[in-house]
Amino acid sequence: MRKPVESVEEFKTRLEEISSTSGYTDPIMFGICRDDMGTMDTNAVLQSTFLVTNIRANLGSAKVFRDALEQEVVEGVEKLSNVVHVSDNELVCNIDIEFLENALATFNPYVEEAIGDQHLNVQVAKMLKTIHDDMAMNPQNMVPFGSGMVTYRIVFIFNDAPVETVEAGYLKLYALSEGKSKLRTLNLNGLFGLLTNCAWLEHGEPVELDMLRDRAMHLKALGRYPGITHVDKFPRMLQHVIPADNTRILDTSKVRMGAQLAAGTTVMPGASYINFNAGTLGAVMVEGRISSSAIVGADSDVGGGASILGVLSGTDGDPISVGERCLLGANSVCGVSLGDACIIDAGIAVLPGSKVNITLEEFNKIFEANLDNSHVGEIKKLVVKHGWKMIEIKAIELSGFNGLHYRLDNKTGAMIVKRSTREIVLNAELH
Amino acid sequence: MRKPVESVEEFKTRLEEISSTSGYTDPIMFGICRDDMGTMDTNAVLQSTFLVTNIRANLGSAKVFRDALEQEVVEGVEKLSNVVHVSDNELVCNIDIEFLENALATFNPYVEEAIGDQHLNVQVAKMLKTIHDDMAMNPQNMVPFGSGMVTYRIVFIFNDAPVETVEAGYLKLYALSEGKSKLRTLNLNGLFGLLTNCAWLEHGEPVELDMLRDRAMHLKALGRYPGITHVDKFPRMLQHVIPADNTRILDTSKVRMGAQLAAGTTVMPGASYINFNAGTLGAVMVEGRISSSAIVGADSDVGGGASILGVLSGTDGDPISVGERCLLGANSVCGVSLGDACIIDAGIAVLPGSKVNITLEEFNKIFEANLDNSHVGEIKKLVVKHGWKMIEIKAIELSGFNGLHYRLDNKTGAMIVKRSTREIVLNAELH
Amino acid sequence: MRKPVESVEEFKTRLEEISSTSGYTDPIMFGICRDDMGTMDTNAVLQSTFLVTNIRANLGSAKVFRDALEQEVVEGVEKLSNVVHVSDNELVCNIDIEFLENALATFNPYVEEAIGDQHLNVQVAKMLKTIHDDMAMNPQNMVPFGSGMVTYRIVFIFNDAPVETVEAGYLKLYALSEGKSKLRTLNLNGLFGLLTNCAWLEHGEPVELDMLRDRAMHLKALGRYPGITHVDKFPRMLQHVIPADNTRILDTSKVRMGAQLAAGTTVMPGASYINFNAGTLGAVMVEGRISSSAIVGADSDVGGGASILGVLSGTDGDPISVGERCLLGANSVCGVSLGDACIIDAGIAVLPGSKVNITLEEFNKIFEANLDNSHVGEIKKLVVKHGWKMIEIKAIELSGFNGLHYRLDNKTGAMIVKRSTREIVLNAELH
Repeated sequence: MRKPVESVEEFKTRLEEISSTSGYTDPIMFGICRDDMGTMDTNAVLQSTFLVTNIRANLGSAKVFRDALEQEVVEGVEKLSNVVHVSDNELVCNIDIEFLENALATFNPYVEEAIGDQHLNVQVAKMLKTIHDDMAMNPQNMVPFGSGMVTYRIVFIFNDAPVETVEAGYLKLYALSEGKSKLRTLNLNGLFGLLTNCAWLEHGEPVELDMLRDRAMHLKALGRYPGITHVDKFPRMLQHVIPADNTRILDTSKVRMGAQLAAGTTVMPGASYINFNAGTLGAVMVEGRISSSAIVGADSDVGGGASILGVLSGTDGDPISVGERCLLGANSVCGVSLGDACIIDAGIAVLPGSKVNITLEEFNKIFEANLDNSHVGEIKKLVVKHGWKMIEIKAIELSGFNGLHYRLDNKTGAMIVKRSTREIVLNAELH
Repeated sequence: MRKPVESVEEFKTRLEEISSTSGYTDPIMFGICRDDMGTMDTNAVLQSTFLVTNIRANLGSAKVFRDALEQEVVEGVEKLSNVVHVSDNELVCNIDIEFLENALATFNPYVEEAIGDQHLNVQVAKMLKTIHDDMAMNPQNMVPFGSGMVTYRIVFIFNDAPVETVEAGYLKLYALSEGKSKLRTLNLNGLFGLLTNCAWLEHGEPVELDMLRDRAMHLKALGRYPGITHVDKFPRMLQHVIPADNTRILDTSKVRMGAQLAAGTTVMPGASYINFNAGTLGAVMVEGRISSSAIVGADSDVGGGASILGVLSGTDGDPISVGERCLLGANSVCGVSLGDACIIDAGIAVLPGSKVNITLEEFNKIFEANLDNSHVGEIKKLVVKHGWKMIEIKAIELSGFNGLHYRLDNKTGAMIVKRSTREIVLNAELH
Repeated sequence: MRKPVESVEEFKTRLEEISSTSGYTDPIMFGICRDDMGTMDTNAVLQSTFLVTNIRANLGSAKVFRDALEQEVVEGVEKLSNVVHVSDNELVCNIDIEFLENALATFNPYVEEAIGDQHLNVQVAKMLKTIHDDMAMNPQNMVPFGSGMVTYRIVFIFNDAPVETVEAGYLKLYALSEGKSKLRTLNLNGLFGLLTNCAWLEHGEPVELDMLRDRAMHLKALGRYPGITHVDKFPRMLQHVIPADNTRILDTSKVRMGAQLAAGTTVMPGASYINFNAGTLGAVMVEGRISSSAIVGADSDVGGGASILGVLSGTDGDPISVGERCLLGANSVCGVSLGDACIIDAGIAVLPGSKVNITLEEFNKIFEANLDNSHVGEIKKLVVKHGWKMIEIKAIELSGFNGLHYRLDNKTGAMIVKRSTREIVLNAELH
């Protein structure tokens, strides 16, 4: 066991020693998690629940935890024991009582004051040691039906590369759902393939489908067949992350783990859904679908049944962003990006190839609302050159413009675009 | 303690005495509730569960309960003790064993026969006394995780003014969801501001988000993090109110507390949602959204994904009513009121400003179906005056008309209105 | 009690004896179930949970079970005892320890090897006997709140006639949801009328609404009012049937018992719903509604909020099939059958009466993609005869055609049909 560090100065010296150890690298993310392991496949990690996450933060704790992992000598070379997975990108290790004691010895000057919001990583180590002492590190005694074995692990991510372990995948999903990493900035490749499709029980426990099959007859005969909330590779966000005080999610099933909801967002229970790596950047009313990779800006309203198409489901790899103060009407479809202050009327489907008409008068107003956008200037040149009184254009050409109002001309059935009645807030630094 | 009343005659005399007490006022609603109190903010009422509600009814019991509240002498003046909130509009008091004993003493002639459907207020008093005796009024022993303290209170509402307490707000929501008050007739102003945004657990227990934050690390480490059904200021209707035997709600999340479903209504689990102060007046098939303040008449069908816009989300303060025997097609949008026997075809968005075409022939049929409606006569005068063969009009002008069929002319894309094939049932008293 | 059968040969002989018994008929389906009985109406079967189902299979076990039912002599005639319902179409009997011992005596040569996937009916008999021995056939001791009495029954269906008992109805729903009977091939008439509208609790227990009413005040006072997942006549599919390993259902409420999901189907939680006797024939992405009786072929995509209309809700009795490799765009409505490789663009409602335009060039491509379909030939004759350059036709005339692409001409608002860009896979045997 490490010797207890006796002072803050000694702690700092200790950290420097660890930093300079051969092979030590600062992680970009790390944390301690509780893994629900499979019962049929006892190596399968069905779910990783992080007790605390560190996203580009708390590198001191990273050093302490890295140092607390035991070494053993294998073929004359000193190696980490308890390693589950190691590569240039990720390190996942099982933790045990020696790990906790080592970490607490180094954390010693902070152990007393680690309460409330202070020193969360120290709190985790303290708490797990208490749990261990209480039940000889045998927590599966108390695990509810179906959750099989439980393992505690520590996870370090060094590079934002394709996901190699379930634990690293969950840590990235946490980073998104906790709002600590921006949407669409993390590499989630490989995640789907690593996750196990499970039945999820009402307290958030994942159960392998084969385990259910194995026990179904017996459980049914006894009237003990469990309640299943969903069958998926992912849990729901509310199983792991607590939203802001003014955020409302009226049905837990509507927000997948890995979605990001800015404070003040409301998700209604009708036709809404927010997939992972998608979400909101401010207070948004969500009554429709925000597909994977789509982002909605502050003070916008995604109307009842409105669909924002995602990369995997209707658009061609260019993810859609909706700006601030936009309104997607009920049952509208948004298949191109919108700038700020746009409106799509109820029931209208704006797809990249949708042809829209704009009068010259409205086009000139739209031009004024998009002075920062070079593409609008190119269109303007064409308009002037040809002397068009009516601009006929595909919606994809208007991608990201501010102040558009997509409407139907009910007399002719044509889709038209006007300057919206919504105010554009100009970037004060530029204008 | 009050002396036991010995006979029905004495009971009546007693009520008259109470009525004539200085300051006594009959309430318009009252009832006894069980409050789930906050754990972080121990004064916050997270939820009020009414054991029985009295809506413009049972004034005898109101008198008994009012009388059973203890008085104390403060600065020489006799005052109610245990008052939580008092104003001209509302009175909320904690109740205790003295209150129950006082009430039961006055209710004495009815205590024996208070079973089944009889004397529900007497039953509540009996039952609470039994619970008290069983566990020395210490019910929090038995409360599941997260519910914090519990308090029993009595609530009187004297005037239908803006809501002043959580309890009064819940009593009004009960009045709506139990069908005892008509939709859109109660003053719900102030309600949103009074309610606490909570996480709701699977048995309907509200938990403060801060409390979850406080305990999340520990609960997660132990595998005891709770299942959360939703995060909202409101519970769902099914947590408080039992629907009629022939009413079906295929997903609890789809009906908010304060919605009203007439007997025979079916709510499907696809894209449907019924907000508070919205609902149905008869057997309605609901596969779409009935937004706050919208009402749908008997024998109508709100198709899959159809949206009826609400006051807060798409219309300008004039709440939408849909009549009887209407059909809102799949993914249609209804932004204006409809009379009886109307149809909006699948996929069509009827907004107040939508321009529609009506042939003279169809207009004349529509005129015949709306003889009670003076506005149709005004339009007819214009039609005759100008000799129009085709009437071009905004949908808002047709608001509330019977027998309309909103369609698309697929050849021209124009929205047209015909007389629907549905029968109008005329008011026998008028015709 | 039957004498134990000592060898496989004796077992075969025994089965032949049973077959030749007067009145013995092979069932088309049979199985042993656990019934949740009503508490208010103790004869009402609220739910039947089958421990194993036999759909046109395992007739040997059928013979053993039929034989194991006790006979008694009534008015000089030998009759089955324990009969709950008997007709030419169905036989439902209570089972007891004598039944189990009789069945196990006959199954004797297989009892040892009845584990894992082997001899499921023998396993059921063994298991129920163990349960009986453990608690003197008194399982209601262990039943959670609200489930009332429990009964074990055996059900035989001889003819696929209208449903006569709840048990037979459930057995047919299992046959559909387990994929053992094809969709739309079973007679489900009468089922709705037999089922009781219940409140369903979180572990899948049905509770009569009257029972809830009876106990609501007491349960609420104690903070023990149960969590209700839905109020319906049907349970959800996931309460009874375990989907394939690569099938995902992101919200349990979205799939009713009696729906059928082929392996690889994904059901998203936005606006999707799959009713009973409806579903998928291969891996399908479902983000919309598959109404009762509608079927979707492999590799198709039902976009967010898309509606496939059902027999009960928008079409006239001719159920809709969608072929393979089809795409129903977000918020589209599909009111006619589609062949393979069709597309309906986002937001378009294709109803039987929708008028569509097809250019001659596109029509000829569509003709080539439907050589197996005689109706396209009839249309072609008309086109040639009249020399049409533009074909104007109702969508219902194109029902079941391959390779259609329903689009909007945004300039004119007209609905048009082109040959889709999707490949048609020709039937190799025919071409």
